[in-house]
Amino acid sequence: MELTKPIPKKFNLDKMSKGLPKRSEDYSAWYNELVKRADLAENSPVRGCMVIKPYGYSIWEKMQNQLDKMFKETGHTNAYFPLFIPKSFLSKEASHVEGFAKECAVVTHYRLKNDPNGGGVIVDPEAKLEEELIVRPTSETVIWSTYKNWIQSYRDLPLLVNQWANVVRWEMRTRLFLRTTEFLWQEGHTAHATKQEAVEEAETMLKVYAEFAETFMALPVLKGVKTPNERFAGAVETYCIEALMQDGKALQAGTSHFLGQNFAQAFDVKFAAKDGKLDFVWGTSWGVSTRLMGALIMAHSDDEGLVLPPNLAPIQVVIVPIFKGEEQLTKISEKAQAIKKSLEAKGISVKFDNRDTQSPGWKFAEYELKGVPLRVAIGPRDLENGTVEIARRDTKTKQVEKMEGIDIIVEDLLKEIQTNVYQKALTFRENNTTKVDSYEEFKKLLDDKGGFFLAHWDGTSETEEKIKEETKATIRCIPLNLEAEAGKCMVTGKPSSQRVVFARAY
Amino acid sequence: MELTKPIPKKFNLDKMSKGLPKRSEDYSAWYNELVKRADLAENSPVRGCMVIKPYGYSIWEKMQNQLDKMFKETGHTNAYFPLFIPKSFLSKEASHVEGFAKECAVVTHYRLKNDPNGGGVIVDPEAKLEEELIVRPTSETVIWSTYKNWIQSYRDLPLLVNQWANVVRWEMRTRLFLRTTEFLWQEGHTAHATKQEAVEEAETMLKVYAEFAETFMALPVLKGVKTPNERFAGAVETYCIEALMQDGKALQAGTSHFLGQNFAQAFDVKFAAKDGKLDFVWGTSWGVSTRLMGALIMAHSDDEGLVLPPNLAPIQVVIVPIFKGEEQLTKISEKAQAIKKSLEAKGISVKFDNRDTQSPGWKFAEYELKGVPLRVAIGPRDLENGTVEIARRDTKTKQVEKMEGIDIIVEDLLKEIQTNVYQKALTFRENNTTKVDSYEEFKKLLDDKGGFFLAHWDGTSETEEKIKEETKATIRCIPLNLEAEAGKCMVTGKPSSQRVVFARAY
Repeated sequence: MELTKPIPKKFNLDKMSKGLPKRSEDYSAWYNELVKRADLAENSPVRGCMVIKPYGYSIWEKMQNQLDKMFKETGHTNAYFPLFIPKSFLSKEASHVEGFAKECAVVTHYRLKNDPNGGGVIVDPEAKLEEELIVRPTSETVIWSTYKNWIQSYRDLPLLVNQWANVVRWEMRTRLFLRTTEFLWQEGHTAHATKQEAVEEAETMLKVYAEFAETFMALPVLKGVKTPNERFAGAVETYCIEALMQDGKALQAGTSHFLGQNFAQAFDVKFAAKDGKLDFVWGTSWGVSTRLMGALIMAHSDDEGLVLPPNLAPIQVVIVPIFKGEEQLTKISEKAQAIKKSLEAKGISVKFDNRDTQSPGWKFAEYELKGVPLRVAIGPRDLENGTVEIARRDTKTKQVEKMEGIDIIVEDLLKEIQTNVYQKALTFRENNTTKVDSYEEFKKLLDDKGGFFLAHWDGTSETEEKIKEETKATIRCIPLNLEAEAGKCMVTGKPSSQRVVFARAY
Repeated sequence: MELTKPIPKKFNLDKMSKGLPKRSEDYSAWYNELVKRADLAENSPVRGCMVIKPYGYSIWEKMQNQLDKMFKETGHTNAYFPLFIPKSFLSKEASHVEGFAKECAVVTHYRLKNDPNGGGVIVDPEAKLEEELIVRPTSETVIWSTYKNWIQSYRDLPLLVNQWANVVRWEMRTRLFLRTTEFLWQEGHTAHATKQEAVEEAETMLKVYAEFAETFMALPVLKGVKTPNERFAGAVETYCIEALMQDGKALQAGTSHFLGQNFAQAFDVKFAAKDGKLDFVWGTSWGVSTRLMGALIMAHSDDEGLVLPPNLAPIQVVIVPIFKGEEQLTKISEKAQAIKKSLEAKGISVKFDNRDTQSPGWKFAEYELKGVPLRVAIGPRDLENGTVEIARRDTKTKQVEKMEGIDIIVEDLLKEIQTNVYQKALTFRENNTTKVDSYEEFKKLLDDKGGFFLAHWDGTSETEEKIKEETKATIRCIPLNLEAEAGKCMVTGKPSSQRVVFARAY
C-alpha cells in the first residue's frame, strides 16, 4: 500500500524539535531542552524549585495512580503528616541528623509586617519561633513520633502507611526532575512486630518498584543493596533499583530501607507482644520521586523528542486530519470520531486534534516531540480507500491500514511498542554492562564507554572512597540476582566473594 | 421477621462512642472528640499542624478523586508550582499583600550546622537567604509570574490549570480540619481573553463545588457572592458556597474568585488578540480544602459517631459475622464472601470483618463510630433461614432480609441513605433559616436559635462591621437565587433591594 496523503512541506517548528540539541553532541543540553520544549517542566522564579507543567504533570499523575494502586494491593493506606519538623526531632536519630539536617529550608519566623521605613513587607523580628521548624527533607522523625501513640500492642501491627507529599532538600546544583530543591514523592513508613516481617516488607516494596519500572516505565532495573557508605541515613539496609541512561550514567530510581529498630528506639516506640513482653518495633521506609520523570525521559527519548511507553502516555493515540476546507474536515471528523470511540471503548486514550490553526505537519512534529506512541492520520484519499496511516513513535515506521478493525490493530501496536521500548533499553543495558578485572581497564572503559561495570571489590569503605575520588564512579549496588563468584578486588587485590556494580551516576 | 442473633452484652467500648460528648451539651467537644476517636485526624507535635490519619485520609481521597474528575470534565488539567514564594512577590498585588503577607511561615536560612558548643544542631548564621521565602498561603503570585511566560496570544487562552497542594497560614487558634496552620487543598488558576469568559469560569466552578457538596457530601449549600469586606484579597468578586452546621453556625465550604485583571496587571501578563491588539488577560482562582472534612463531619454526624453519605464512605458496607468457634465462622464466611463479591460487582465497597480478636458488639460500635452506612450481620440462625440482618447508620433501623437478591436491596438502600442524609440536612437548614426585619429580633434569635438569617442590609461596610462587632454574625453571602425584594436595612432603616444571609460562622 502506498502513502495516501500529501504532507505539507512547510510548517512552523519554532517550538518543536528543530534546534533540539543532539544526544550525541550534548546529552545534558538535549535533556534540559527536551524537558522544557515538550512542556514537561521549567525552572521557577524560586531558586532550585521547578514548575511541573500540565503535560509533565499528567505523566506524573499516571505514575502516581499506578503506584498508588500497587501500594493498596499490597495492603498500604495513605495518610498525611506535617510539612514541618521541629529542629530537635532531626537530632534524635544519630546518623539521620548527619544525613538530613544540613542543607534544608529553615522556618524561623511566623509573621511579616509593613516596613516602618516604607520598604514593603519585612520579617517581623517579634515573631521569632522558639524552636525553628525544618521543611521536611523526609518524614521518618515526625512519623515515628506519631507512631508512638498509634502503637501499643501487636494488634496495632503491622502499620502500613504511605504518604504522597512534597519535600525540600537545599541542593546547590539543581536540574529539572533529577535534582530539585523541592520535589514530589511518596514515602512509605511501616512498623512491624518482627525483624523478619520488616525485612520482607522492604523487599516487597523493592519488588513493587522494580515491577513498576519495568512494566510501566519500560525501564529495566538492577535490584540490589547499597554499601554502608551509600545507605540511607538511619537505615540498617538500603535496597535500591538502578537504571542505566543513554549516556551511560546510572540513575537510582527508587530505594527501600530496612530501618531495624533505629527509629523505634529514637522515638521510644514499643509494643506489647502476645505474651505481654514489651519490645521496640521494626521499621521500613521506601520512596520514589519525580526523579522517575527524569529517568523516563533519559532512558527512551531521542533527538526528535520524547518517547513514552504506552502504559504511561497521557495521550496514547493522536488522530490528525489532513484536510483542505470545512467540508473535508467534516467528512474526516466523522470517521475520526468513530475511530476515537472504538479505541476509547478499549480503554485507550485518544486525542483528535482538529484544530485549524496549525498545519498537519506542525502537529506531526508536536506529537513526536511529546512522545505520543501512535499517530493516526486521515486524509481525503483515506476516505475513498477506507484506510488510515499509522505512524509509530518508537520505530518511526508508518503503515497504511484498513479503518475496519483498526481498534484491534492499534491495541496490538501499543502492546508491541511497550515491549519494544523495554527491549531496546534492555539491549542497551546489556551492551553497556561490562565485566572488568583490572582497575586500569575499569578506568579506561569508564571514560571510553561508560555504563555499568561488574567488578570485584574488597568490601572496605576506603577502597570505595578511593575509587570514587579517582574516577567519580560509585558502587551503585551489590546486586541481588548475581551469582557468588570468588575473585580479587580490582584495586587492592584482596579477596572478594561477589562482583558489585560500579557506574558514574546522576 | 425477628432479630435472629444474640448480641453480646459486654464489649470493650474504650475507643468507641462511650464517653463521646453529646452534641446538645458541648458541640465543640463532641466535634473534637469525634475527629480523634473515629480516626480521622489528630494534632501533631508541630503547633497547629494536623496528622490526617488513614481513615480520615481515605475520605479526603474520595473527595479528591471526585472533584478531580469534575475539574477534568470541565476542561482543566493539573500542574504543580513551587511551595515557596519570594517575599517580594506578595507585595506586587496591593490588596493581596494585606490579606496574606501577615501570618505566614518565613524561611530565612537554608542550612543547619553542629553547635560548636555541643548543643545539637543550630541554624547556620552564614546560610541566610538574600530574600526570605514565604511558604505559600495561596499561589496566585507565583502562578501569575509563571503565566507571564506561558501566555503570548489568544491561542494560549483559556489557560485552565488546577493544583493539588499543601498551604500554610499561621493561624493563632486552630481546630482539626476547620482551621489548621497547614492544610491540603486544590487551587484552580485560570486565564481568559475576555471578562465575560472569566466571570463564566468563576460561576462554573461555583456550580461544580455546589454540585459536589450536594451530590457527594449530601450537604445543601447556599450559592452567593461575598460583600467587599469578605472578598478574597485581590479579587473583584468572590463567589462562595455556604453550609449550615448542626449547631446553627455557618461554614464557608468553597470559594471561586473573579480576579478581573488585577494579577495580570501586577505580573504584566498580556496577550495579543486576533486583531493583534495587546491587552491584560482576565483571571479566576477557586479552591476547596480539607475544611470540607470538617463540614462533612459537623453536618451529619450524631452522638454515636460519624454519619457518612454513601457516596463518600470508604467502606459502604461492613459484614460482621456472629459466631462461636472456627466451624461457624467458616460457614458464615462462605456466605459473607459470596455477598461481598456480589456487592463489589455492583461497585460497592465492602469490608468483611472476620477478626476473632474483637466481639461482634465491639465491631458494631466501631463501625457506627466510623459512620459506615450499612452493616450486614450474619449469624448461625441466618444461615438456617437464608437471611441477614441489615442495619442503617443514618436511621439506626434494622431489617432482616433474604440473602438472595441482597445486592439489589443494598444498592437501593445506599441510594436511599444518600438521599435521606441530604434531606435531613436540608430540612434542618430550612427549619433554621429565618427571615428577620428588626435588629432586636435578629440579635435575640441569633442567640436563641442560630442558623441563617435573611435580613435587609443597607449595603455599607459600616453597618456590616457594626453588626459583626455587636453580634459576631457576618454576612455569609448575598445569595444568587433569592428574589429581589425592596426593604429597609434592619439596623439603619436605609433602603435595601435584597435580603442577604447573616450567620455566626466557623
